[in-house]
Amino acid sequence: MGRLTGGDPSLLRRINSAVVLDALRGAQTPTLTELVHSTGLSRPTVEGVIEGLTESDLVVEVGPEAGDTRKQGRPARRFRFHAEAGHLLGIEIGAHQVRVVLSDLSGQVLGSHGRDVDEAASADDRLDRVRGTVAELLRKAGVARSTLWAVGVGSPGIVEAHGEVRLGTALPGWTGLPLGERLQRSFRCPVLVENDANVAAVAEHWKGVAVGTDDVVFVLAGLSPGAGSLIGGRLHRGFGGAAGEIGALHLLGREVTPEHLLSTTGEPLHPLDEPAVERVFALAKQGDAQAKDAVERFLGRLVHDVAALVLAIDPELVVIGGWAAGLDGVLEPLRAELTRYCLRAPKVTLSALGQEAIATGALRLALDHVEQQLFAVEQTSMGRRWP
Amino acid sequence: MGRLTGGDPSLLRRINSAVVLDALRGAQTPTLTELVHSTGLSRPTVEGVIEGLTESDLVVEVGPEAGDTRKQGRPARRFRFHAEAGHLLGIEIGAHQVRVVLSDLSGQVLGSHGRDVDEAASADDRLDRVRGTVAELLRKAGVARSTLWAVGVGSPGIVEAHGEVRLGTALPGWTGLPLGERLQRSFRCPVLVENDANVAAVAEHWKGVAVGTDDVVFVLAGLSPGAGSLIGGRLHRGFGGAAGEIGALHLLGREVTPEHLLSTTGEPLHPLDEPAVERVFALAKQGDAQAKDAVERFLGRLVHDVAALVLAIDPELVVIGGWAAGLDGVLEPLRAELTRYCLRAPKVTLSALGQEAIATGALRLALDHVEQQLFAVEQTSMGRRWP
Repeated sequence: MGRLTGGDPSLLRRINSAVVLDALRGAQTPTLTELVHSTGLSRPTVEGVIEGLTESDLVVEVGPEAGDTRKQGRPARRFRFHAEAGHLLGIEIGAHQVRVVLSDLSGQVLGSHGRDVDEAASADDRLDRVRGTVAELLRKAGVARSTLWAVGVGSPGIVEAHGEVRLGTALPGWTGLPLGERLQRSFRCPVLVENDANVAAVAEHWKGVAVGTDDVVFVLAGLSPGAGSLIGGRLHRGFGGAAGEIGALHLLGREVTPEHLLSTTGEPLHPLDEPAVERVFALAKQGDAQAKDAVERFLGRLVHDVAALVLAIDPELVVIGGWAAGLDGVLEPLRAELTRYCLRAPKVTLSALGQEAIATGALRLALDHVEQQLFAVEQTSMGRRWP
Repeated sequence: MGRLTGGDPSLLRRINSAVVLDALRGAQTPTLTELVHSTGLSRPTVEGVIEGLTESDLVVEVGPEAGDTRKQGRPARRFRFHAEAGHLLGIEIGAHQVRVVLSDLSGQVLGSHGRDVDEAASADDRLDRVRGTVAELLRKAGVARSTLWAVGVGSPGIVEAHGEVRLGTALPGWTGLPLGERLQRSFRCPVLVENDANVAAVAEHWKGVAVGTDDVVFVLAGLSPGAGSLIGGRLHRGFGGAAGEIGALHLLGREVTPEHLLSTTGEPLHPLDEPAVERVFALAKQGDAQAKDAVERFLGRLVHDVAALVLAIDPELVVIGGWAAGLDGVLEPLRAELTRYCLRAPKVTLSALGQEAIATGALRLALDHVEQQLFAVEQTSMGRRWP
């Protein structure tokens, strides 16, 4: 294809910058000549772009490699993307914990930090805990807050596109909370808020069991399960951001609640009382008949909810995450039931990222945002496209 | 933005042809000057393209309009897209009927024809009925088979991308049938096969109640309901083409089958016996207590299945179609239950296309295929893109 000619020169410069940065990211430490080849741009253009990117600290020159030939006594200059020029945060705000992951601009994780939080904590206290955990992590890593380029956040509830929690029954004071706006006060960079199951799906696709699998449902198992879906590699939020909220499904049958299902005492479990849930699973493993019944009832319900999702969406892969304990018991019944009733049963597997899934997915949101700014040149079958 | 320069001249010609055809379709009967303005191409380029398109019968010159000014004694020449140069078919292959719609290349419907078919007919007999119905319609409309550019087909069952029915329990001999290949023998143009609920969703988006609504679930109600979804305006087929096959959901609860639910005699209804179903709905309307119970049980099940879909996908709109009779009774309970249990209930409405939905959607598949060939130039926010 021909190159672009004419048009807005600053736009052209921005596109050329993105092209060169993208090529720099793809190669290790290319020379100017290698960049000219990989981008198809002229040598003077690449030189100009590299100069500009070096001034804005996004590119640094690195020393020559062992085999580099010398030209007129000097080895060819080599460059790399200066990923350390900025930083990203991924934050999980959960019922029992706050977890923060820090990375450079390439998504390379530099550290993480988690803090417990009371399930009954108010929204203000929970946000204080978030701010404290962020401050501790930044201090520990020796990273200045001013170098943050984007912050991603994963939270329970239905999150509007502008960061408000439309409905969030899992955390006190969460429904109606302008979460994005509240967190924004602590950062000068963009803050992106998303549902926890949604970011967990993104995380498994980025570096978990769903790498290379573009049609994935991630089930965040719990007494009220939620789910996030990728369709064709893209997050499916739904028209109102509520896709995958299958927790309400059992209400339709007017059947007993999950809290009752998993109870061995006749009294409902507290929906957020994970230790109590773990005790029931552990008892069932030890052969306790009442606990085994409870777990079986609970798994039957989970299987039903997941099957409804699978029939609606027809994913290639279902990833089960959420509770650390007891979930391994869900795989076999799920596989068996899905094989019986789904016309083409998807693969079913446990999350590879476990307790890190939500913070990791939140980090990926932040990374997506930055990549959109830096490398906003997509490949199409016929050439490059720019948004 | 600058124009393309250099590159493959035949490709450039094809792109320019698509640009001009697209502009011709958008305007009524533009002049060359108007086409030069609307395409941004040079006058000689537009003249060359128009000449080529006229030779291939895709463009015709039309007479001057009343207000046209004359240049040197001649009015400016006007052109239009010659939609009659080719034809498209949309075919529904159902349990009880075969229905065929004929259109020109712009999708303008020129005629339709339906024939009953026995629900117990073999696959061979059903395909014979399809061929007969097509032949009758073409003859009636005076259209030569050789002018067909594409044929779309909507059929029950899970349809693979290459047109084979992987699972189709609603029609005898349907599972494993290479439907696309079998129909292909009757046509020299491409034959595109798709699930019936999927094409019905496409149809409502094209010219039914979902025009302008890009996130839609179409529920093909019946004793075993199926559904088709558009997400962001695009058909969501699922990883294996099985998305929306919610009919299997009731199996999970090991509850009674829908055929039992709607029975007033204790004996199951035949899944395809629509007259029997209509009798039950009619009896319920007349106040028959047993029939009212049966309808209530049935609607409760349908509500549950649709709610599962809605929770999984979170559409803006749910369209209920399929059975002609009794479905109006499903709207109010559906709206009430979805409002109670969904976090943001979608709008719920009846199909506007009724018995024409599937054939119309199949026609749209054929039209999409042809438009991809003729006008394969999409608009992006920054300019034109080509696949």
